[in-house]
Amino acid sequence: MGKQEFVKEITSRDVDFAQWYTDVVVKGELAAYSGVKGSMILRPTATAIWENIRNEFNKHLERLDHENVMMPLLIPESLLLKEAEHVEGFAPEVAWVTEGGNNKLAERLAIRPTSEVLFAEHFRDIIKSYRDLPVLYNQWANVIRWEKTTRPFLRTTEFHWQEGHTCHETFEDADIEARQMLTVYRDLVGDLLAIPVVSGIKTQSEKFAGAYETYTNETLMYDGKALQLATSHHLGDNFAKAAEIKFLDREGKEQYVQQTSWGITTRSIGAMIMVHSDDRGLVLPPRVAPTQIMIVPIMQHKEGVLEAANELKAQLKADFKVKLDDSDKKPGWKFNETEMKGIPVRIELGPRDIENKVVTVCRRDTLEKSTLPLDENLNENLMALLDEIHENLYETAKKRQKEKTRHASTKEEFIEMIKEGGFVIAPYSGSEQVEDEIKELTGATPRCIAFENIDLDLTGVKDIWNGEDAKLMVHWARAY
Amino acid sequence: MGKQEFVKEITSRDVDFAQWYTDVVVKGELAAYSGVKGSMILRPTATAIWENIRNEFNKHLERLDHENVMMPLLIPESLLLKEAEHVEGFAPEVAWVTEGGNNKLAERLAIRPTSEVLFAEHFRDIIKSYRDLPVLYNQWANVIRWEKTTRPFLRTTEFHWQEGHTCHETFEDADIEARQMLTVYRDLVGDLLAIPVVSGIKTQSEKFAGAYETYTNETLMYDGKALQLATSHHLGDNFAKAAEIKFLDREGKEQYVQQTSWGITTRSIGAMIMVHSDDRGLVLPPRVAPTQIMIVPIMQHKEGVLEAANELKAQLKADFKVKLDDSDKKPGWKFNETEMKGIPVRIELGPRDIENKVVTVCRRDTLEKSTLPLDENLNENLMALLDEIHENLYETAKKRQKEKTRHASTKEEFIEMIKEGGFVIAPYSGSEQVEDEIKELTGATPRCIAFENIDLDLTGVKDIWNGEDAKLMVHWARAY
Repeated sequence: MGKQEFVKEITSRDVDFAQWYTDVVVKGELAAYSGVKGSMILRPTATAIWENIRNEFNKHLERLDHENVMMPLLIPESLLLKEAEHVEGFAPEVAWVTEGGNNKLAERLAIRPTSEVLFAEHFRDIIKSYRDLPVLYNQWANVIRWEKTTRPFLRTTEFHWQEGHTCHETFEDADIEARQMLTVYRDLVGDLLAIPVVSGIKTQSEKFAGAYETYTNETLMYDGKALQLATSHHLGDNFAKAAEIKFLDREGKEQYVQQTSWGITTRSIGAMIMVHSDDRGLVLPPRVAPTQIMIVPIMQHKEGVLEAANELKAQLKADFKVKLDDSDKKPGWKFNETEMKGIPVRIELGPRDIENKVVTVCRRDTLEKSTLPLDENLNENLMALLDEIHENLYETAKKRQKEKTRHASTKEEFIEMIKEGGFVIAPYSGSEQVEDEIKELTGATPRCIAFENIDLDLTGVKDIWNGEDAKLMVHWARAY
Repeated sequence: MGKQEFVKEITSRDVDFAQWYTDVVVKGELAAYSGVKGSMILRPTATAIWENIRNEFNKHLERLDHENVMMPLLIPESLLLKEAEHVEGFAPEVAWVTEGGNNKLAERLAIRPTSEVLFAEHFRDIIKSYRDLPVLYNQWANVIRWEKTTRPFLRTTEFHWQEGHTCHETFEDADIEARQMLTVYRDLVGDLLAIPVVSGIKTQSEKFAGAYETYTNETLMYDGKALQLATSHHLGDNFAKAAEIKFLDREGKEQYVQQTSWGITTRSIGAMIMVHSDDRGLVLPPRVAPTQIMIVPIMQHKEGVLEAANELKAQLKADFKVKLDDSDKKPGWKFNETEMKGIPVRIELGPRDIENKVVTVCRRDTLEKSTLPLDENLNENLMALLDEIHENLYETAKKRQKEKTRHASTKEEFIEMIKEGGFVIAPYSGSEQVEDEIKELTGATPRCIAFENIDLDLTGVKDIWNGEDAKLMVHWARAY
């Protein structure tokens, strides 16, 4: 199979974005389907990416004195139902265990759709006084939400996430925490996944049920649809009141704790794919790529080639996640594979390169080839190249996001812009009727009020849909 | 509450070992009970220990070119039943999901008791040729086995583990892999948890159902009962034949792959507790302790004390996981807390220490106090102390294990020795009847044939129970 045929296996993203996505996920070997409907197998590359996200996020948690815990997978129905407002949203999505050890259970057990109630119960047990606060907990977990239609990473019955749950003495402390975690997520997806975001606040209609405020990071995919990348909720004492989580304050008075919760999921891997990848397959940002550099020997049967390739690998191993493909496949096939799998840098090394003391370097993002001296500075040069690739991926996505973010001043413009894709910014009165109309006509929802638009002076500005006074400047988009 | 009262809260381990264990787990804040029967909450210390085990094991996997993957949580009944021999063992322990998204499911879904069948299905999909081998996979996961009686870490309905699953070209490759992983576990529990083990092979009666050979690391608890710490199975092609996992070999002939599987669970945390902890509470080995050093200021209201304590913390932070307890609790209370929570080293720092440019150091394992100069060599001195604590814990456990490992030459001796606790080594004919008799009379089971006893010349040696020719020299013990 030649290069041409191999590449053709992936549908073009400009022709059929949904099919392109599935092709990249499967042929890029990120995920595989199993006999379990709605669930997927995360293959080594996707698992390594999620572990890199996990390790980096854990570093932030350690820096901020947060701690990880592990809550049970199963929640008794009676406990889940305690938080009525919350459960109403999840009930239709719950998977129920009704039999265990060959017996019918007296009470149904839910597989956690989220662990709010378990944390609440535990907080009530361990928090007595202001001395016990703040409690800053996080857990890495799998959760189940019964979905009718599923797509790898974006919507699956089982997914992986971290869920942070914290308790504080004051409303202000909780707000600082919720905002701080949004910044952590913004840095995380920027530094690791090379994804630029618009940070802001959710409108009342889109915030988490029971939250006082939901902060969010929104980003645009290649096709112009938005995706929510991690949210952080300031819960106030709403949940604490329902769950009776109280403490004695510094004056000896009983108070409810003020809470936050925040999370990022394996959806972020889907976002990474839809922001950076192309018609040749995956494009992995260098800092999460489990293999950063693949060495492909050219004419490896010739004397000295494999030895030189192994020496090169040994030299690079000190600084990079590097592999050498010394299989008996043809070089052209190996090239296609490194591209399909999104490996950031491919190094080609043949007899002529060895003779000239150089290596041929091909970067995945631009597919440009260049030559670097095969000397003691090679590692440093490649480090700079990986950084450059990261920056290029981030800047390309940011430029696209900027181009696809526009202000609409009439209904017609709004509708046309949403159809073309991207964020449409428009003044909004907060009317539910307008939101329903927009959703029906365009499929768009309010994504957020960007932080930079929070303090805008909207005196005299009107909602372009109903002519009423505008109260908010909102980013709208169709979303995943 | 004075020191006396505080300590009294823990039952003595020589009086009631089971109650002592529960006391240490709960009051040492490793685990908490939740409203979910048989499940527990892993609190920050236990979660951090498990993460340290995970990170260290992942380093071994990376060194050995193994990869992590993530399989689905739920397994359709029909898929689980495919591996009949295997399922027979697990069927009574399975939790079944029968309802999802408000609907009764057409087919029951098992929450994985293990993921063998999922790996088998995936291997069948991705392995075509010898070029695809070996496949060296591992996953970190939660599993459920329905248990009637549970104890934190030792036997819980939900537990956490890693399960490795590998496929190889030859029977010998699989054997090398299975043995190699046993060595990794041996190093892991020795280096991190300071637990010495007896490595060996399981008898036919005790090996994993369907395995060709099960390798095991066995260790003794303080009460003389044994605990199995990680096993590694050489599966041969038994599972591959059942699941039709074939490949084209180097001669183009179709062959079944040769497999291994291996795992370590959160039980290892239970073992760590039962090997090292004492009547004052937890004793954490320094390399897994989430807090290695706790600084307790003395007379912290005096000028300069808290400043000096914070300076000390800053100095130690470069090399240790260090905390400063500057709460308004009394020092005596703080001392008890560091002991209850098993923090390896406590540093006391008061006005007189500051004046004399020293710190008072109290090690948790021996409770000995000493004085160290408060200078630029302190970090180095403390590093040596932590290593010494690790060595002392390991050697103390090893000495106890040695003392409690005895050879029996008569039935009566055997029975008496088992009653006293520990390993009893005795020549064994392999007779099932003898095994049943021993189990009935003593509660002991064959733990392993230690590697050093594999090649013993047993010519003329008789089974002390039935007088028949001995075939194996077996370690027997009552076990958790």
